[in-house]
Amino acid sequence: MRVLGVDPGLTRCGVGVVDGAPGRQLRMVAVGVIRTPTGDPIHERLNSLAGQLDEWLDQYQPESIAVERVFARNDVSTIMGTAQASAIPMLAAARREVPLALHTPSEVKAAVTGNGRADKAQVTAMITRILALNAPPKPADAADALALAVCHVWRGGAAARIEQATKRAQGR
Amino acid sequence: MRVLGVDPGLTRCGVGVVDGAPGRQLRMVAVGVIRTPTGDPIHERLNSLAGQLDEWLDQYQPESIAVERVFARNDVSTIMGTAQASAIPMLAAARREVPLALHTPSEVKAAVTGNGRADKAQVTAMITRILALNAPPKPADAADALALAVCHVWRGGAAARIEQATKRAQGR
Repeated sequence: MRVLGVDPGLTRCGVGVVDGAPGRQLRMVAVGVIRTPTGDPIHERLNSLAGQLDEWLDQYQPESIAVERVFARNDVSTIMGTAQASAIPMLAAARREVPLALHTPSEVKAAVTGNGRADKAQVTAMITRILALNAPPKPADAADALALAVCHVWRGGAAARIEQATKRAQGR
Repeated sequence: MRVLGVDPGLTRCGVGVVDGAPGRQLRMVAVGVIRTPTGDPIHERLNSLAGQLDEWLDQYQPESIAVERVFARNDVSTIMGTAQASAIPMLAAARREVPLALHTPSEVKAAVTGNGRADKAQVTAMITRILALNAPPKPADAADALALAVCHVWRGGAAARIEQATKRAQGR
């Protein structure tokens, strides 16, 4: 399963592609940050983000997209831009009919560190270990996008295993 | 000038098309509400909204799009969906290279009633008068979309007149 993780933002939008299946070694395929010019009008920035994200989708053809769920309780000054930015990968997933999942930051932290309140350094350290990287992923703030993708592989895998076990138990 | 006003929302997105120029009688071309199924995943709803909005843009070919500016201080329970929904007309404007403006609710109210804190009934009454309609626009919650379009014609017109006057004064 190939997953694209997206940590939405207008100024910096983290993107990370991970190949893997639950119970197997996960592999980082690509990681990066999509930027849009801070001086541009917001609608131009959304369009730029959409265009650059399309390039990632075309190049890596993920089978699933995992986007961080944005909450109203985050920093109010940037929350509107982040919410609008999050609409872009969501719309792209629906347009391309690629399954999409939203994961909260604490779900992601719990998945990769075992602690829903882990700090950034802990998440980065674990992502480096889980993906067997030689060094922490760069740019640093793209580690969250990889963590989203890892979280999705593992959670999706668990969900799939439960579904399979249920079917077996029901003799289907 | 033909303006499409958009009052963004996932469950109900008001749309209104107005033809006009500052100092001339404004004309309502069309008004309606775009709905998306409340039970669907949000990314499917965003895609449905984008598709329906595209039909409005194709049919009415506005020269300008005016979208209500969404604030974080609004109702927190629906604000994320509204912010994400607002990204859809913004993205469409950038894609089609149609000029876009954001107006705050109080700018719109002040433009059509003279009072930035006017209530809904007042806005509807004034929109009915300004557009010389025989009855208040239906559906009722689409009046805000028409008010956005009217606000945009008048504010845009004022801005253009000031610019023209400045140029004349500078002998250009």
